[in-house]
Amino acid sequence: MRTILVLNGPNLNLLGLRQPEIYGHETLADVESLCRATAGDLGLAVDFLQTNHEGAMLDRIHAARGEAAGIVINPGGWSHTSVALLDALNAFEAPVVEVHISNIHKRESFRHHSWISGRAEAVIAGCGVQGYALALMHLAARLKA
Amino acid sequence: MRTILVLNGPNLNLLGLRQPEIYGHETLADVESLCRATAGDLGLAVDFLQTNHEGAMLDRIHAARGEAAGIVINPGGWSHTSVALLDALNAFEAPVVEVHISNIHKRESFRHHSWISGRAEAVIAGCGVQGYALALMHLAARLKA
Amino acid sequence: MRTILVLNGPNLNLLGLRQPEIYGHETLADVESLCRATAGDLGLAVDFLQTNHEGAMLDRIHAARGEAAGIVINPGGWSHTSVALLDALNAFEAPVVEVHISNIHKRESFRHHSWISGRAEAVIAGCGVQGYALALMHLAARLKA
Amino acid sequence: MRTILVLNGPNLNLLGLRQPEIYGHETLADVESLCRATAGDLGLAVDFLQTNHEGAMLDRIHAARGEAAGIVINPGGWSHTSVALLDALNAFEAPVVEVHISNIHKRESFRHHSWISGRAEAVIAGCGVQGYALALMHLAARLKA
Amino acid sequence: MRTILVLNGPNLNLLGLRQPEIYGHETLADVESLCRATAGDLGLAVDFLQTNHEGAMLDRIHAARGEAAGIVINPGGWSHTSVALLDALNAFEAPVVEVHISNIHKRESFRHHSWISGRAEAVIAGCGVQGYALALMHLAARLKA
Amino acid sequence: MRTILVLNGPNLNLLGLRQPEIYGHETLADVESLCRATAGDLGLAVDFLQTNHEGAMLDRIHAARGEAAGIVINPGGWSHTSVALLDALNAFEAPVVEVHISNIHKRESFRHHSWISGRAEAVIAGCGVQGYALALMHLAARLKA
Amino acid sequence: MRTILVLNGPNLNLLGLRQPEIYGHETLADVESLCRATAGDLGLAVDFLQTNHEGAMLDRIHAARGEAAGIVINPGGWSHTSVALLDALNAFEAPVVEVHISNIHKRESFRHHSWISGRAEAVIAGCGVQGYALALMHLAARLKA
Amino acid sequence: MRTILVLNGPNLNLLGLRQPEIYGHETLADVESLCRATAGDLGLAVDFLQTNHEGAMLDRIHAARGEAAGIVINPGGWSHTSVALLDALNAFEAPVVEVHISNIHKRESFRHHSWISGRAEAVIAGCGVQGYALALMHLAARLKA
Amino acid sequence: MRTILVLNGPNLNLLGLRQPEIYGHETLADVESLCRATAGDLGLAVDFLQTNHEGAMLDRIHAARGEAAGIVINPGGWSHTSVALLDALNAFEAPVVEVHISNIHKRESFRHHSWISGRAEAVIAGCGVQGYALALMHLAARLKA
Amino acid sequence: MRTILVLNGPNLNLLGLRQPEIYGHETLADVESLCRATAGDLGLAVDFLQTNHEGAMLDRIHAARGEAAGIVINPGGWSHTSVALLDALNAFEAPVVEVHISNIHKRESFRHHSWISGRAEAVIAGCGVQGYALALMHLAARLKA
Amino acid sequence: MRTILVLNGPNLNLLGLRQPEIYGHETLADVESLCRATAGDLGLAVDFLQTNHEGAMLDRIHAARGEAAGIVINPGGWSHTSVALLDALNAFEAPVVEVHISNIHKRESFRHHSWISGRAEAVIAGCGVQGYALALMHLAARLKA
Amino acid sequence: MRTILVLNGPNLNLLGLRQPEIYGHETLADVESLCRATAGDLGLAVDFLQTNHEGAMLDRIHAARGEAAGIVINPGGWSHTSVALLDALNAFEAPVVEVHISNIHKRESFRHHSWISGRAEAVIAGCGVQGYALALMHLAARLKA
Repeated sequence: MRTILVLNGPNLNLLGLRQPEIYGHETLADVESLCRATAGDLGLAVDFLQTNHEGAMLDRIHAARGEAAGIVINPGGWSHTSVALLDALNAFEAPVVEVHISNIHKRESFRHHSWISGRAEAVIAGCGVQGYALALMHLAARLKA
Repeated sequence: MRTILVLNGPNLNLLGLRQPEIYGHETLADVESLCRATAGDLGLAVDFLQTNHEGAMLDRIHAARGEAAGIVINPGGWSHTSVALLDALNAFEAPVVEVHISNIHKRESFRHHSWISGRAEAVIAGCGVQGYALALMHLAARLKA
Repeated sequence: MRTILVLNGPNLNLLGLRQPEIYGHETLADVESLCRATAGDLGLAVDFLQTNHEGAMLDRIHAARGEAAGIVINPGGWSHTSVALLDALNAFEAPVVEVHISNIHKRESFRHHSWISGRAEAVIAGCGVQGYALALMHLAARLKA
Repeated sequence: MRTILVLNGPNLNLLGLRQPEIYGHETLADVESLCRATAGDLGLAVDFLQTNHEGAMLDRIHAARGEAAGIVINPGGWSHTSVALLDALNAFEAPVVEVHISNIHKRESFRHHSWISGRAEAVIAGCGVQGYALALMHLAARLKA
Repeated sequence: MRTILVLNGPNLNLLGLRQPEIYGHETLADVESLCRATAGDLGLAVDFLQTNHEGAMLDRIHAARGEAAGIVINPGGWSHTSVALLDALNAFEAPVVEVHISNIHKRESFRHHSWISGRAEAVIAGCGVQGYALALMHLAARLKA
Repeated sequence: MRTILVLNGPNLNLLGLRQPEIYGHETLADVESLCRATAGDLGLAVDFLQTNHEGAMLDRIHAARGEAAGIVINPGGWSHTSVALLDALNAFEAPVVEVHISNIHKRESFRHHSWISGRAEAVIAGCGVQGYALALMHLAARLKA
Repeated sequence: MRTILVLNGPNLNLLGLRQPEIYGHETLADVESLCRATAGDLGLAVDFLQTNHEGAMLDRIHAARGEAAGIVINPGGWSHTSVALLDALNAFEAPVVEVHISNIHKRESFRHHSWISGRAEAVIAGCGVQGYALALMHLAARLKA
Repeated sequence: MRTILVLNGPNLNLLGLRQPEIYGHETLADVESLCRATAGDLGLAVDFLQTNHEGAMLDRIHAARGEAAGIVINPGGWSHTSVALLDALNAFEAPVVEVHISNIHKRESFRHHSWISGRAEAVIAGCGVQGYALALMHLAARLKA
Repeated sequence: MRTILVLNGPNLNLLGLRQPEIYGHETLADVESLCRATAGDLGLAVDFLQTNHEGAMLDRIHAARGEAAGIVINPGGWSHTSVALLDALNAFEAPVVEVHISNIHKRESFRHHSWISGRAEAVIAGCGVQGYALALMHLAARLKA
Repeated sequence: MRTILVLNGPNLNLLGLRQPEIYGHETLADVESLCRATAGDLGLAVDFLQTNHEGAMLDRIHAARGEAAGIVINPGGWSHTSVALLDALNAFEAPVVEVHISNIHKRESFRHHSWISGRAEAVIAGCGVQGYALALMHLAARLKA
Repeated sequence: MRTILVLNGPNLNLLGLRQPEIYGHETLADVESLCRATAGDLGLAVDFLQTNHEGAMLDRIHAARGEAAGIVINPGGWSHTSVALLDALNAFEAPVVEVHISNIHKRESFRHHSWISGRAEAVIAGCGVQGYALALMHLAARLKA
Repeated sequence: MRTILVLNGPNLNLLGLRQPEIYGHETLADVESLCRATAGDLGLAVDFLQTNHEGAMLDRIHAARGEAAGIVINPGGWSHTSVALLDALNAFEAPVVEVHISNIHKRESFRHHSWISGRAEAVIAGCGVQGYALALMHLAARLKA
């Protein structure tokens, strides 16, 4: 069974707790459950990580080289500032889907640009936590093709 | 049964025919079939329009006010240039999901900005024609919520 | 009796229906009545057109060459995007007054620039639908001078 | 009888004397007469001030708080440079209409932006001195509504 | 005999009538005659279209796919604003030559950039209506090569 | 006893009266009392001026050369526009502390840059009228050092 | 007794050791003592952290949610680059005061913008290490109000 | 005998007192003497004004219309900020020479642009107070021609 | 017989040798032959110069004043950098046609702007070496008119 | 024997594994060997660190103060984003040489600017892993001088 | 007797011949005579060079090191483009005065910036050929001081 | 024996004489000796040229096509302004290493961009004259590989 790495960047551990008018009421545990259920239906396994430490995120992506069949990543605030994260994903050879819970294009202008988007195969923004499920569905379709 | 309006902007009639390395091999008829099938599964009806005439697009959106339960739109080249289209969608009271077949953030920089994204509830880019199905799934989820 | 062409661009057919907090509650029919009444008081005739089709707008302006004594135009969303509309007005030899129902300078920054303003003799913004009447009064004064 | 404060900024004392190809041949005294006559017809009183001293302008606007029913202002060159004037108008609670005798959008690009326009309810440019009369008419209509 | 599609965008129906100090005194009919004569000399046929409707232009370009041996296009005001037109030409597989009657680099700065130029094989500006003939000559040479 | 000059720029005479949601409910008289009390505790005298006239502000700063031991200044709207004020402070040889009642970085972007900040030794923004007291405390500490 | 979290970002462990012409001669231990003494006088407790690890800073801010009554933060170099830090503070519900030891507006232009300033209630720059004490005084005043 | 108006803007009353490393050691009285002596040699009279009040400067320029044969102006800090001053000079019909004591192009970049330079016939910067004498010599030559 | 000066700027001596995928396989000698043949057919003489020395180019243009009936110039890399070349052409009183062998608008963005284009009567880019012949044809037509 | 600290930033642990068309086939172990051999020849010792954790990098640089005779650093993706790293190097008193394996000026434009370059004594880019050896040679020469 | 080097850049050999409405009717020979006469009156010698070859200009400036007491330079079009000229003047140790015959600030915006102005002690623009004489007078005064 | 062309641009003939605080005390003759010695050790020959004439530089590069095995170039001031030089190097088929004696990233911002860097295989800046030796060593390594 192929494994998809689902990554969440800084502050996403607070999901459901902080600013629910932007990010909704579901928690990161809910996201993990959703991902596992969706992946299960699609015949995929899920590896799940949230971290506030950029270095830990890079290490995890490096470890996924040659292992994971794809990455779903919500880079949080690093979307707009981390070239190192972009470079780590550039060093990963399988497809990447970028997910944002909120529609970043409706928010402050500095959130409109993500370094990751130019690397990702697909970008899904504003679908709430359902975005993770849609991303997994897209990866599954892409892996089949 | 609630109806979703699925709109396609200029040049999308050529889908599957032009630049398949960017847009893939599926045709607009394939997209329509996919949308109808997906919507059927979700208990939704679909109204489908492609036009190269901005005025026709605006007229159709106006007619959907108070009728359609949501819009899925691939604005094509108008994404980057049409404030009139943004205004028409602003005058539409139900949710809008913007779809791009290719990941516009991997292409020329003038394609990175879409006037529509600041109006849409969600944006899905780079999932190929599957993006339409994902958009319908998101609208269905949103209508249920 | 000299004729003034009163033109309304995209989405203005929805006047009074969409976003009344921005555009007020009066309809396009109200605008037409107001224009006819005002023009009548000023000894002028009015030709009235609203269209969502840029080509139709251009055709109408072309037809007005050598016929109309002036143009009052609310270009709507085309204000910010249509050089073709600017060129059509450049090809029209009589005075042009640009009207915006809302004060575009209080809104999103992309609405602050209008291609038409550099061609128009006068610009009236934020007077609501009364702006059309004021524009006609100014054209009348200018025609007398 | 409600009073409208009509304010004119720097160099407008030279109206009719300087650059008549831009500003026309009517003098500031003509503008004052026009304003008094128009206001009289509308059942309004007028307080009239021209000054080349920014501080005097600010003092006058402060004094109008709670007194004047509205302001018509031609800020002249301060339009483009005075945040202090913007702040004074922000501290005034009734409607403001900004008037420019010439169409500032046909002139040097630094004249296209006015700090005042984002505060004003309406902006009238390029109607010559008639612009003051139109502004008063709009204020009268707004006060009635 | 191979056919070249000669396309003219908005307001070019007024050629010879509007602003002759910029566009000269020859009419669109003169341009058509010139194109037919030149093409005849070069052993080519000409299909000729002028339209003020962007959608009609796109439809015509789509129809030319697999039919026309090349396109000569004067995009008029759309040069500076229409990504949809660029996309339509991107979907056309044969050579494109862009023509501007006036030298757009001597005019307002917003006319210096054309979305079409990055797609066209060649750009000819400022040669007056002779530019169409030169464009046809270049297409003929290119088709021979 | 050393004297600190406390300066307030345009519109600050309205403190407590205008926009209390931004500037709070305390008046300029309250600020003066606070400054005198704080300075007294610190063994300093205070000279206090508010003016809407840039020239009067410059004259006062000039007079303080060689007299005052420091300046606390809230430049109001001139922060963003007056190089002349910057130059006057450049000609003053003792320390300057800039105070803003509101946090200018949370407001419109044109308020984020102050010409004075590059001259001031310290900048305090968003502490309400307490900011004046903190500024005096800092000046006292700096004078002791 | 309410607790204030005092946070120091990268390189501030070197305070007093590096570039004393910019940052002065007092050490981070001096800052901690000053904060504890000042807070004690104000009836507040202090929690003190310096870290060079962004993730550790985020974790600490998260832990302060619902615990600390306010944050005083000197974000050091992250001021200009870390959206993740801004987001963590956005997820903190109590007041934040940003402190810079030097006046960042007198230094290189890239130091003039801080992502944190738009989130903070107040910003104090250039008061040296006294700035921490002033920030605590302001938080105390704000908590009383 | 024709009269030249010599104008000095804000802070120039401090000449010789402030920042002598930039502005030198000669006082404004020295400048006045130099101007009177130079003008005398050239058969011209001089009217001399320094003011820190923009309004006073505008009033003086207005009074010079039809009276003075030319203006020599050192606009000081207003060079970079006052459109009102530019407009006043635009309303003056005789030649204007702009003088800066220091070479503004060697200083901060915001001093490189002067609103007045586009109106002046000539600009002299960096010649110290001798610049006033050179400006008078140029005006004399121009008046002779 | 009237003479046209055909000028080629830096590196064009390598035509046909360097980067043939951009510039083609024809040499500068081929260009000269083509120009002489085309000019002969048009009843014109040709003076031909290629130089890598800007000064030599300027000298040659100066010498052509009052002699040559027009200039065809391919400025090469100087297109984007030489104001001196622009000034030399400004000092030449007859028509100028700018030629680029490649379509500079399809290449790096710094090649999209040419200082010469604002001076030239016409610009021809992307027609390969045939562009020189088309330029001569246009000059011939212009000289006849 | 003096010690040089050789630092490698994020993702450089993958050297030789990721994107060899950009970074070559040599591994980080090869780089370490090369550095040790080169330094040995130059009579220098080497301390070698690669980390994906910014905080660890800062801590290591702090520890090198007063210990290491110089730093060779390849900051990887942090080059373009980390002011904290710049500040840490600013707090280090000995020479710094920045190395990039690829020529960053041939890559995406966001890689052209490095925060570190303005601090480093020298910058070497595009020499592959040999760049580390050249950097050590330069440090050796500088230490001798 | 000390010698001043008077340098003229590209196209200035055409002075009096080209565009007299901008540059006047006096020739370069007139400028040379004026310089020699003025310098003679001031007790200075003049070395005079005009060249269209940048290299020749650089060589001449190099030769002046340690020889000439100052340079008067009209850099012509190189003002806006030549860093090499700036560097050559940076390598010259005596004062430099930059002269422009026309007021470059009244012309195209690309003429407003001169690389030389940041190196020159003084800049004189718009005084016609008299500017050279004024520059010599200033150099004489500076040499005396 | 393979030959490397070592090129030096404008003003580098003054090396060791001008601004030694930036460029050091070694002369161009020293550089030539260093290059010959280093190349000898590496089994390479050196051809050495310094010129202040751009045309001479281009001619020399053209002559090296098919002859030299590589180029080491210090473009001096042309780095920032000469597209013609870039084009000449583009026409050279072997490797190019760009050398700057000073670290251009520590100097004025206009020196941070070099047109040549995007063409060069490697860039070495700030190593003083040793940079030429390092460049030769890199070319030798590259030629071996």
